[in-house]
Amino acid sequence: MNDKLEILLHLFIIFTAAKIFAEIFTRLKQPIVIGELIAGAVIGAHGLGLIGDTHVNDAIAELGVIILLFMVGLETRMDDMREVGRPAIMVGFFGVMIPMVMGYGLFTLYGFDSIRALFMGTAMVATSIGITARVLGDMGLIKHRTSRIILGAAILDDILGLLVLAMVSSLAKGSFNYVEFSILLAEALLFVVFLTTVGPKLAGKHIHKFVDRLHIGEAPFAIGLIMVLGLSVLAEYIGLAAIIGAFLAGIVLSETSDFLKLEKKFEPVSHFLVPVFFVVMGTKFDILALLTPSTLVLLTLTVIVAVISKMIGSALGTFQLGWRTALQTGVGMVPRGEVGIVVGTIGLSLGVIGQELYGIVLGMSILTTVIAPPLLTLSFRSDTQLSEPAPVKEPV
Amino acid sequence: MNDKLEILLHLFIIFTAAKIFAEIFTRLKQPIVIGELIAGAVIGAHGLGLIGDTHVNDAIAELGVIILLFMVGLETRMDDMREVGRPAIMVGFFGVMIPMVMGYGLFTLYGFDSIRALFMGTAMVATSIGITARVLGDMGLIKHRTSRIILGAAILDDILGLLVLAMVSSLAKGSFNYVEFSILLAEALLFVVFLTTVGPKLAGKHIHKFVDRLHIGEAPFAIGLIMVLGLSVLAEYIGLAAIIGAFLAGIVLSETSDFLKLEKKFEPVSHFLVPVFFVVMGTKFDILALLTPSTLVLLTLTVIVAVISKMIGSALGTFQLGWRTALQTGVGMVPRGEVGIVVGTIGLSLGVIGQELYGIVLGMSILTTVIAPPLLTLSFRSDTQLSEPAPVKEPV
Repeated sequence: MNDKLEILLHLFIIFTAAKIFAEIFTRLKQPIVIGELIAGAVIGAHGLGLIGDTHVNDAIAELGVIILLFMVGLETRMDDMREVGRPAIMVGFFGVMIPMVMGYGLFTLYGFDSIRALFMGTAMVATSIGITARVLGDMGLIKHRTSRIILGAAILDDILGLLVLAMVSSLAKGSFNYVEFSILLAEALLFVVFLTTVGPKLAGKHIHKFVDRLHIGEAPFAIGLIMVLGLSVLAEYIGLAAIIGAFLAGIVLSETSDFLKLEKKFEPVSHFLVPVFFVVMGTKFDILALLTPSTLVLLTLTVIVAVISKMIGSALGTFQLGWRTALQTGVGMVPRGEVGIVVGTIGLSLGVIGQELYGIVLGMSILTTVIAPPLLTLSFRSDTQLSEPAPVKEPV
Repeated sequence: MNDKLEILLHLFIIFTAAKIFAEIFTRLKQPIVIGELIAGAVIGAHGLGLIGDTHVNDAIAELGVIILLFMVGLETRMDDMREVGRPAIMVGFFGVMIPMVMGYGLFTLYGFDSIRALFMGTAMVATSIGITARVLGDMGLIKHRTSRIILGAAILDDILGLLVLAMVSSLAKGSFNYVEFSILLAEALLFVVFLTTVGPKLAGKHIHKFVDRLHIGEAPFAIGLIMVLGLSVLAEYIGLAAIIGAFLAGIVLSETSDFLKLEKKFEPVSHFLVPVFFVVMGTKFDILALLTPSTLVLLTLTVIVAVISKMIGSALGTFQLGWRTALQTGVGMVPRGEVGIVVGTIGLSLGVIGQELYGIVLGMSILTTVIAPPLLTLSFRSDTQLSEPAPVKEPV
C-alpha cells in the first residue's frame, strides 16, 4: 500500500467511524465524544486493527485538539473569567496538590520507589480540558458559571501540572536544576499573564485597522490561524503544552471575534479535525493489556484515587459555592485524557516507568475520560433543563 | 526539537509565508498561487531552509489538493461538461499524444535510450489541473466555456497519462502485462463513467432524504467529507490519482450542492489546506541543482517542448472553435505541476531515471506551472473585462 493511499484510507476510516458512532450516540442522547472515543477503540490497533498508530494521524489529531481549544478560547471572555478567578485558582491549586499527594501515596503504599510514585502522581495531576469543554459545548453550557470555573481551573492545572512534570523529570534525570525550573516558571507566568491581560486589549484596539489594510481575501481567518499556530508553537517552545497556547490565542481574539466572525469561520475546520482527535485518542486504548488480575486491581485503585482526589481538590476550592457547584466542578476536572498520556510517554522515554505503569497511566487517562461525560451530563442535567436545549441538529 | 513542536512550527511558517506572499501578489495584481509557490521556494530546504521535506507536510498538502479538486468538482455541472464533451475529449487525446511523441523525440535525439526517453515523454503528458483551476477560480472564470473544456480535457489527460505511466512502468520493469493493463483501463473507465453519469443522478435523488434521516449536526459536511475521502481512496486504489476521485466526488455532489451548501461549508477548510499544498510544492524546487550549463540547456529545451506540444495538442483539439479558444486551452494545459513530479518520483524509484533527469522533470513541472498563471491571465484578460471582476476581498 503506498503512502498516500494509507493516509487517505486512515482518514476515511477515522472520519466515517466517527460519524457512525456520533449518529448512534446522538440517537441514544449520549455525549458524541464518547461515541468518537469508542469508534477509535473499535477501529484501532487493539480493536479491529483497521488503522495503526501513524505519525500523520497523530499530527492531524494534534491539529484537532488545537482547533478545539482555540474555539473554546474564542468563547471565553476574560471579563467573565475574572469573575470566577478566585474559585478557579483555588480549584486549580487543590486540583493539582491533592491528586499529586494521593497518587504518590497510593504507589508508595504499593511498593514502588519514590521516583516512580512521584511520576504516577504527576500523571494524575493535569485535567484534560478538551473532553470537558466538548461535553459542556455539546450541552450548550460552555458559558455557564461553573463551566468557566472548570475551564479556568483546568488551564491553571495544566500549567501547574507541566511545572510539576518539569520538576519530576529533572529529579528522574538525577539533577534538579533550580535555574532551569525558575526560568520555565517565569516564562510560563509571563506568557499566560500577558496573553490574558494585555493581549485581548491590544487585539481589540489594533486588529480592526490591520484587517482593513490587508488586501487578501479572508484576512480574519488568516490572522486567526496564524495566531493559533504561532502561540501554540510558542507555548510548546517555552515548555508548556501547545493546547495552552491555542486556548490563549482564542482568548486574545475573543473580544474581536464577533467582528471577525471567527467562530463561524473556524467551525467547518473543527468539524473536520476535532473528531479525528477523539477517534485517534480512542485507538490508543489497549484493553487486553490491562486484563491481568494484579494490573486490573492497581488500575481500579488508580482510577478511584484519580476521581476522588479531583473531587476533594475541587470541593476544597469551591466549598463556599455550595455542594452542587463543588460536585459539578469535581466531575468536570476528572478526565485526564491526553495530558496524562503525555506524562506517561515522557516517563516511558526517560525509563522511569515501564510498560505496566505506562498501561496504567493510559488506562487511567482513558477511563477517567470515558466516565466523565455521562457524570457531567447527569450533574448538569437540571441546568440544561433551565437553559436552552442542546443544539443537536443545525437547521438546513 | 520535539515532534509536535516541529509539526506546528512548520505549519505556522508555511501558512504565514503563504499569506505574506499572497498579500504581496494581490497588491501586484498577480495570481496568488505564484506567490504561494515562491513562498515555498523561499522557505524550503533549497531556500532559507526554514522547513524541510516531511511526511506530515506532504500529507497535509495532499489533503489540500484533494479539497481543491473537490471544490472544483462541486462547481462542475455535468450538463455543462457534456456540452463541451467533444472538444474536451479531442484536447485530452491530442494533449497526451503530442507531448508524449515530442518528449520522446527530444530525449532520443539527446542520446537517451528509449525507456528513459519514454519515461520523460510520460512525465510531460499529464496536466496539473490544480494550478489552472485555481487561477481561473481566482479570476472568476471557472464556469467559462473554455475553462470547462480545459478542466474536462485535464481530467481525461490525467486518466490517459496514468494509463501511459502504467504501461511505461511495466516496460521499464521488463514485463508489459496486457492483463494488468486491461484491468486498469477497464476499472478507470468504469469508475469515471459511472461517477459522471449515474453518480450525480443517484445523489440528486437520495441525498435529500438521507440527510433528513440523520440526527447528527452538520450531516451535509460529514457526507461531503466522507465522499471525497472515500472516492479519493478508491481512485488511488484502482491505480488512478487520488485527485481524480476527489474531483469526481465533487461532480457527484454538484447537483445537490446548493441544497447541502457544501461550497460554503468547505470554504474555510480549503482556505486552510489549499495554500499549504502550493507552498509545499514550492519547497521542492531546487534551482541551484539545475544551474550546470548542460542541464540548463536540456531543461530549457524540455520546457519549450512541454509548452509547444500542449499548444499543438490543444489547437488540434479545438481548431473549429477559433484561434482564441485554442490559445486559451493550450495555455491552460501547460502546467504539469504535481503529476509530472509524481511520474518523476516513480521513475527514480524504479531506477529508470537518475538525479539529473529527475531534476529536469521537477524543473519542467515547476517552470510550466509558474509560467502558466501569467499567460492564462493575459490570454483571458478580455474575458474578465466582459464578466464580473475577480473577487479579491470578501466584504467583512
